[in-house]
Amino acid sequence: MSDSMFTKENEAFAGFLFYGSLLLLKVIMMSPMTSLPRIWTSSMATKEDKIFCILKSPKNKRSCTEPNEAVERVRRAHRNDMENCFVYVFVALAYLATNPDPITAVLHFKIFFYARLLHTVVYLIGLQPARGVCWMVGMGATISMLYRTLSAL
Amino acid sequence: MSDSMFTKENEAFAGFLFYGSLLLLKVIMMSPMTSLPRIWTSSMATKEDKIFCILKSPKNKRSCTEPNEAVERVRRAHRNDMENCFVYVFVALAYLATNPDPITAVLHFKIFFYARLLHTVVYLIGLQPARGVCWMVGMGATISMLYRTLSAL
Amino acid sequence: MSDSMFTKENEAFAGFLFYGSLLLLKVIMMSPMTSLPRIWTSSMATKEDKIFCILKSPKNKRSCTEPNEAVERVRRAHRNDMENCFVYVFVALAYLATNPDPITAVLHFKIFFYARLLHTVVYLIGLQPARGVCWMVGMGATISMLYRTLSAL
Repeated sequence: MSDSMFTKENEAFAGFLFYGSLLLLKVIMMSPMTSLPRIWTSSMATKEDKIFCILKSPKNKRSCTEPNEAVERVRRAHRNDMENCFVYVFVALAYLATNPDPITAVLHFKIFFYARLLHTVVYLIGLQPARGVCWMVGMGATISMLYRTLSAL
Repeated sequence: MSDSMFTKENEAFAGFLFYGSLLLLKVIMMSPMTSLPRIWTSSMATKEDKIFCILKSPKNKRSCTEPNEAVERVRRAHRNDMENCFVYVFVALAYLATNPDPITAVLHFKIFFYARLLHTVVYLIGLQPARGVCWMVGMGATISMLYRTLSAL
Repeated sequence: MSDSMFTKENEAFAGFLFYGSLLLLKVIMMSPMTSLPRIWTSSMATKEDKIFCILKSPKNKRSCTEPNEAVERVRRAHRNDMENCFVYVFVALAYLATNPDPITAVLHFKIFFYARLLHTVVYLIGLQPARGVCWMVGMGATISMLYRTLSAL
């Protein structure tokens, strides 16, 4: 078969484009979700960002670059997204190249998307072991696709 | 249309290959740009890297693993690249799969590349709000491609 | 040539699917390799993770969220993977789009995979300059593919 799998007429690939786009929209939302608490708590990463400090005042002795736990929590959730979602994107593309059953494939993409969406929510509100479970579901979907890809070669 | 979009004969894809390659060349340059100030300032991340410490001397009491602000700044710029450029690569591929107008597509790739190149420059010299503007232009190009992809499905 | 390169019948792409899948399997293994020493050393990143602290006891004054060097080392190796392996995945795809000689292409994928596997091993056991050499071999393979891609456009 020399016809490309990578056209939106292929149902599996269209599902990947849809859920993958929503997933990465969620991932890039982590950036403003880091910037806003930086401003609210006046916790900047670099000294030139002090122009955004709203808590800076003659009476306020804080340095404006002290780390804040709310900011650090979003950054950890964002890093976890990078560790998991970027690997997923490649693994899904590799899996699609093996011409998988569209229903099984889209199920993987759907499960991964909802697991990661929920992972961010429970990370930000600080729930365990819910966060561990969400992470494992996403990891399970990734490993399942990796296994199917390697088996199909 | 079952013909693949992903050949260099497709003008939009060729533009992506060109600007995407330059972009990632810029991203990987952040690694030596972290290592060199580590050596100049003798600020290593791990203890076995002390063999590269040039400021180590019997008189020098510094530990050789103290964080240095110049190094941390490059690392933050590098992390910002990872957060933004890896998402862009997938979003651009998804957008290309919807068979976009080549002129519009290449314009997105060009804008994103120059915005991120400038972002790194102004991050390293410490200019605000120029850095915020560059970041927003790159983010705008990414969201525009995401919107066009989801609309075309 | 309008036939897609991105089918597993293409020997170069099949090699990428194989070595790329193994590479990303290695990368995702860094996550449990971070979690396990977090539990063994009771060094958690967030306060809700204290439920996993095994060293917590009335006599133990440690906070359960103090950073631990073994954990931080795995995290640095993981970040180095993100900096290098995600760039590689795109660069390899771009290089494949230029229809390279399969033997040369698979050689690049093989060298990158073994260099990164060895990089993780020597990072975790703390060997220098072996780690620098592994890093440079991986970077060399990436730059070679970037150069070949840009030359073929």
